[in-house]
Amino acid sequence: MTAADLDRADPLAPFRERFLLPEGVIYLDGNSLGALPRDTPGRIEQVMRHEWGDGLIGSWNDAGWVQAPQRIGDKIARLIGADPGEVVACDSTSINVFKALTAALALNPARRVMLTEAGNFPTDLYMMQGIAALCPGAQVRTVAADAIARALTPDVAVLLLTQVHYKTGAMRDMVRITAQAQAAGALVIWDLSHSAGAFPVDLNGCNADLAVGCGYKFLNGGPGAPGFLFCAARHQDRVMPALSGWFGHAAPFAFRDDYAAATGITRFLVGTPPILGLAALEVGVDMWLEADLSLARTKSLQLGARFQQAMEPLCQRHGFSLASPVAAARRGSQISYAHPQGYPIMRALAAHGVIGDFRDPDVLRFGLTPLTLRFGDIDAAVAILDDIMTNRRWDTPDHHARRAVT
Amino acid sequence: MTAADLDRADPLAPFRERFLLPEGVIYLDGNSLGALPRDTPGRIEQVMRHEWGDGLIGSWNDAGWVQAPQRIGDKIARLIGADPGEVVACDSTSINVFKALTAALALNPARRVMLTEAGNFPTDLYMMQGIAALCPGAQVRTVAADAIARALTPDVAVLLLTQVHYKTGAMRDMVRITAQAQAAGALVIWDLSHSAGAFPVDLNGCNADLAVGCGYKFLNGGPGAPGFLFCAARHQDRVMPALSGWFGHAAPFAFRDDYAAATGITRFLVGTPPILGLAALEVGVDMWLEADLSLARTKSLQLGARFQQAMEPLCQRHGFSLASPVAAARRGSQISYAHPQGYPIMRALAAHGVIGDFRDPDVLRFGLTPLTLRFGDIDAAVAILDDIMTNRRWDTPDHHARRAVT
Repeated sequence: MTAADLDRADPLAPFRERFLLPEGVIYLDGNSLGALPRDTPGRIEQVMRHEWGDGLIGSWNDAGWVQAPQRIGDKIARLIGADPGEVVACDSTSINVFKALTAALALNPARRVMLTEAGNFPTDLYMMQGIAALCPGAQVRTVAADAIARALTPDVAVLLLTQVHYKTGAMRDMVRITAQAQAAGALVIWDLSHSAGAFPVDLNGCNADLAVGCGYKFLNGGPGAPGFLFCAARHQDRVMPALSGWFGHAAPFAFRDDYAAATGITRFLVGTPPILGLAALEVGVDMWLEADLSLARTKSLQLGARFQQAMEPLCQRHGFSLASPVAAARRGSQISYAHPQGYPIMRALAAHGVIGDFRDPDVLRFGLTPLTLRFGDIDAAVAILDDIMTNRRWDTPDHHARRAVT
Repeated sequence: MTAADLDRADPLAPFRERFLLPEGVIYLDGNSLGALPRDTPGRIEQVMRHEWGDGLIGSWNDAGWVQAPQRIGDKIARLIGADPGEVVACDSTSINVFKALTAALALNPARRVMLTEAGNFPTDLYMMQGIAALCPGAQVRTVAADAIARALTPDVAVLLLTQVHYKTGAMRDMVRITAQAQAAGALVIWDLSHSAGAFPVDLNGCNADLAVGCGYKFLNGGPGAPGFLFCAARHQDRVMPALSGWFGHAAPFAFRDDYAAATGITRFLVGTPPILGLAALEVGVDMWLEADLSLARTKSLQLGARFQQAMEPLCQRHGFSLASPVAAARRGSQISYAHPQGYPIMRALAAHGVIGDFRDPDVLRFGLTPLTLRFGDIDAAVAILDDIMTNRRWDTPDHHARRAVT
């Protein structure tokens, strides 16, 4: 089928108009920073001028600011198979990883090992390492991805895995791994940074314990948007939060000297909620609640298959190799290729209006965001890449020069 | 002097036009949520449409997002007597309290007590209590405000105090207490939530160790704006951060498995910086860099003295009692009064366009923000309060009804 035919038949095609995308750009990096929803600037303007400017302090009550983390959390819950009262939107993903890990250690006090895979997204590893240095006895065990099952020894308190690998896009079997880890007596934390808003997730369907995720990727919440934290209802009231801030208190405005955790998911809040960031996140999440995640998954698989097929001749001619699982069903919503000149090639692509990103040492990563991409974009992007390779347009000093953020 | 004369002579008067304040409101709560700077909506619109919408992922480099926490930190440093490279803007104040406390414990490893005063702002106490539960051996010691000096025993690792008390406005002598605590072998963390942007602070002039502060009060950064963290240069490279996230890594975009702390203040960053919140904070901070904090202090003292004088007859007639130090020089930039009917009185004031806030059990708190307030506002506010008391306008069911945020 031609791209034009596929685009005409695409039930998600109208969503593209709901984003403000620059002219002449094919954006294949919505898995790093989601595009700007058309409704966001107006909503933020309203928050600024009416809620903050006119409403001032009263907006904590009158504009619903004080409940924003729970309200938006409940909306995110619908995207990830959680129930109301199991998710809050707050803090950064890294901070939420810290909360989830310390909660898991508290829930499994006879065990002290935090297990993960080598090459997991670094902040997950780093937060573990900080906890190990802070809490005597707590240990980090980092093993190869295929060695997780046999590393689930009786000292493992918690397994932390990212469902979709940030570099390769490989997707973990959440049902099987959760069951396996729980059978071995461990809790599981799922990092859903590349899952939420990319395809249907069913946390409660697999009896998940804890999860975290990112607001600025597939959820389109804006740069550095608040992340989210899921804690299964059965665990919530058994955890004394390690980050015990006033917004997690049972009565924050009683200003008592002693911490008393709020019931439910609220206890995982810490400081004053970041209202501008939450408001922008809510716009992105609200749009997802109008979309059908199953349709999004179907389209994402099609986009990936088309990209993969179009890339086959480039793999032969220009030395690219697929860095993602071959089967589309085993990938999240991205596809990655390795190339020894990956960095300057990605810079050259950007200079020609195709934006993906590069991950050391040699990975070109292309995000497949089904609400913003057309099938025609895929064909055009690969054609531009072919031209860049054929005419060696990547080999300029400017494209080789490294920048702070790669 | 009449209020009109004072307002005409006020060198800070032009700043009032730099804020978007609602008509008919006298805002005496800028110490809880600072007013909206006129430049903020335009700046945020630019960040959304141009930087996020058009620039997309490239804005991490091209729009300076990646350095925003340090850049804004350096600007805040100029308001609090710190040097460039000693402050970052990031996370919530509560999270920054956690970082500062765990850093202090790491810097003073032979000692395990975290000391503070009873009645300190609760999140400071709560974060301490969380650390004590998480880290075996760490202890919280909470003593009466006037017992701090004798509680500085040889087991005290760190003293955490808020320079200006959130309820009474009482201001601590930062120079004397820092010297006293350091002479006793403790480090000191200053919570500057009610100091930064309220009057000149001189952290390095008193050899401070660590400090935290709030972005949404006197700095006018917006609801839930990022806070800030100060760590004296001499300590920075001796601390392995407990919250060891990827933005604090020496090479975050090398995506290595092992955490290696960045040099300097950057290691106190954790997750991806919240760009919308930081951009709004920067507008507020930039305005302060144009103002003269010494003039602000002078005006704040005058506003407080005028308020106090105008309240004297109301104390006699209506049963208010001053809940702040009598001497204006011993107060921060607020003045508080106790009254048994404080809650409904404050609600009635709001209904009549005078906004302050209430703090349990009986405190009416009035923030004196020198960039937005006129002397005439003080006279008018007290006149309205007098009318409310004389005509018992506070005594309605609606004003008695408690709301979520008080």
